[in-house]
Amino acid sequence: MINNSDIERMSQAIQLARLGQYTTRPNPNVGCVITDQNNNFIASGYHRQAGQAHAEIIALQAAAERAQNSTVYVTLEPCCHQGKTGPCAEALIAAKVKRVVFAMQDPNPLVAGNGRAALLAAGIQVDSDVCRDQAQALNRGFIKRMQTGLPWVTIKTASSLDGRTALANGCSQWITSAAARRDVHTMRARYDAIMTGIGTVLADDPRLNVRNADIEQVVQPLRVVMDPNLTMPSDAKMLGLAGQTLVFTDKNSSDIDLKLSQQCEIVPLDTHNGRFDMRTVLACLGAREINNVMVEAGSTLCGALIKHHCVDEIVHYLAPTYLGEGQPEAANKGMFNLGSLTAIDQGIGLTITDQRNIGVDVRITASISYSTK
Amino acid sequence: MINNSDIERMSQAIQLARLGQYTTRPNPNVGCVITDQNNNFIASGYHRQAGQAHAEIIALQAAAERAQNSTVYVTLEPCCHQGKTGPCAEALIAAKVKRVVFAMQDPNPLVAGNGRAALLAAGIQVDSDVCRDQAQALNRGFIKRMQTGLPWVTIKTASSLDGRTALANGCSQWITSAAARRDVHTMRARYDAIMTGIGTVLADDPRLNVRNADIEQVVQPLRVVMDPNLTMPSDAKMLGLAGQTLVFTDKNSSDIDLKLSQQCEIVPLDTHNGRFDMRTVLACLGAREINNVMVEAGSTLCGALIKHHCVDEIVHYLAPTYLGEGQPEAANKGMFNLGSLTAIDQGIGLTITDQRNIGVDVRITASISYSTK
Repeated sequence: MINNSDIERMSQAIQLARLGQYTTRPNPNVGCVITDQNNNFIASGYHRQAGQAHAEIIALQAAAERAQNSTVYVTLEPCCHQGKTGPCAEALIAAKVKRVVFAMQDPNPLVAGNGRAALLAAGIQVDSDVCRDQAQALNRGFIKRMQTGLPWVTIKTASSLDGRTALANGCSQWITSAAARRDVHTMRARYDAIMTGIGTVLADDPRLNVRNADIEQVVQPLRVVMDPNLTMPSDAKMLGLAGQTLVFTDKNSSDIDLKLSQQCEIVPLDTHNGRFDMRTVLACLGAREINNVMVEAGSTLCGALIKHHCVDEIVHYLAPTYLGEGQPEAANKGMFNLGSLTAIDQGIGLTITDQRNIGVDVRITASISYSTK
Repeated sequence: MINNSDIERMSQAIQLARLGQYTTRPNPNVGCVITDQNNNFIASGYHRQAGQAHAEIIALQAAAERAQNSTVYVTLEPCCHQGKTGPCAEALIAAKVKRVVFAMQDPNPLVAGNGRAALLAAGIQVDSDVCRDQAQALNRGFIKRMQTGLPWVTIKTASSLDGRTALANGCSQWITSAAARRDVHTMRARYDAIMTGIGTVLADDPRLNVRNADIEQVVQPLRVVMDPNLTMPSDAKMLGLAGQTLVFTDKNSSDIDLKLSQQCEIVPLDTHNGRFDMRTVLACLGAREINNVMVEAGSTLCGALIKHHCVDEIVHYLAPTYLGEGQPEAANKGMFNLGSLTAIDQGIGLTITDQRNIGVDVRITASISYSTK
């Protein structure tokens, strides 16, 4: 039986899990709270970094012998396989806890339910699905990768209220306010990788790292550049920064610059008409344990990702300005190349999930409805 | 001395004034509440329609002899000139009221302050500026016309989240939801005139009237079409509807279709390179006692109005969809032709004054900052 105290304690565990959101990659964020039979707090813990102890282990260590007959709230089904650290189900059994409540099942289909089964077999009472949606939201990238092999993909984009991202002359700095740009840095810190196209690198020479974010321990996301013809300059700003850069290029690209190859990893892939199969690219990143990718790119790469149903979410900063169309022969730049549509309902349908002001800008978060129209 | 009861009673008067918002044109919206010396309600009234009694007169009639020694709250300075109905200041003096509180001064610079002076001269206590901002907001069009001769101009526009208003093939129905379209009809009912360009008439044959709005008494706004070459079809839908249509055309336009001239008023004006001077057009409408104009037009007319600093407000419905750019040779349609910009800060700066969801769409209301950059 689930009661209100269970929900309260699990909410606490989720808040703890969230403390690991900038550092646990490629592991999921997990939090744990242990209480006695009268629901009094005994101990808590959260997973801080891959290779370090899991949330349950940290909490059990803090509880020591008080763990006996306790209730353990944990946001993810306790593991029962030997990872880098010992299996948590075994530790819970050894500690003689009375009851385990978890929020979501292990998303890995190969082991899902095994933790529960091990606990039940040891006579421990098990309840689950408490605050499941919140726990899943926190680990949506990890879940998607476990279930599909592909990372979660979010396009971050910024435009004027009339959907222009740059002027005809390439000028785009700064459409949005300093507050929105700070918000983007905090967003980057939650992603395992930031993807862009070579066009953006050549035009803007972006750094794509986390700066100006009020985060204690920054793990710089992997920078990913889509560069079929391998024209990445070896003096690109991002190559001189902390963190790694990965450049996808056509497998027939010759003349790999020695200096470039020392500064980043170059991954050759098939292309078709000069274009990558974006699902293959994402599968490559998934195989490297990238749970989520933030795309900050121009209309060609963003459009290709959208058209090929690779995008889970869009975060769109709208600045309170109109830039207009420019001239027919030198048009201001739009957001997405989606090809020719012949009816409005062929547009990319969105479901707005969050909408708020960031400084003077409006930030809209939306999921894409890939319905089969 | 102004106290909280004054603010409460004036707020009531403003709510009453608002009841006339669909019907008083070209007059302002005015409400009135009369209370006794202990602030007990005696009577109220509001101006309902031009030619009918003013708010104070209706309230005084309802109060009859109880008006003596009362306090009269009225949202606009009582008039002291003979209009279609007798001067209100005189009626207040005759009724022997003790105190008059008004929200805003008469915006007509020729008579502003005269009402107050007449009341003071008769020994009536006068306070003003109570809830002034709210009263002014309600009559912003009337105020602007009184002070500048020009109507208030609001552009209403609807686009996808990437600022596209139509596909390359002209298709634009329907980008926004039924809820947003209903909202537009309620908005139209608050305007004296709806302006569009001949391009929109030829492409969409819009009706531009008020439909599907939950309004008891609809006074159809004047429809205004900018048509330099007088290509308005005599079978345009709007010409067959209740209400009037005004067509501005070049003064050298010849061959005025007899049938067309019977269905609408044709106003010849100077043009320059086939374009009207929009300030002259607005002055024409102001001279016809049009207090406010809602523009529902394509990017050329909207862009010209914005560039020439003719726009007070923009109401922008954003639909949760992306339509993309289309192809270079057949681009999807954007919002505003503003010419070539060379720096982002040459964009049209907006101050968002309201932002809300209308059905699945986002409605943003913004004023334009015509700063001199």
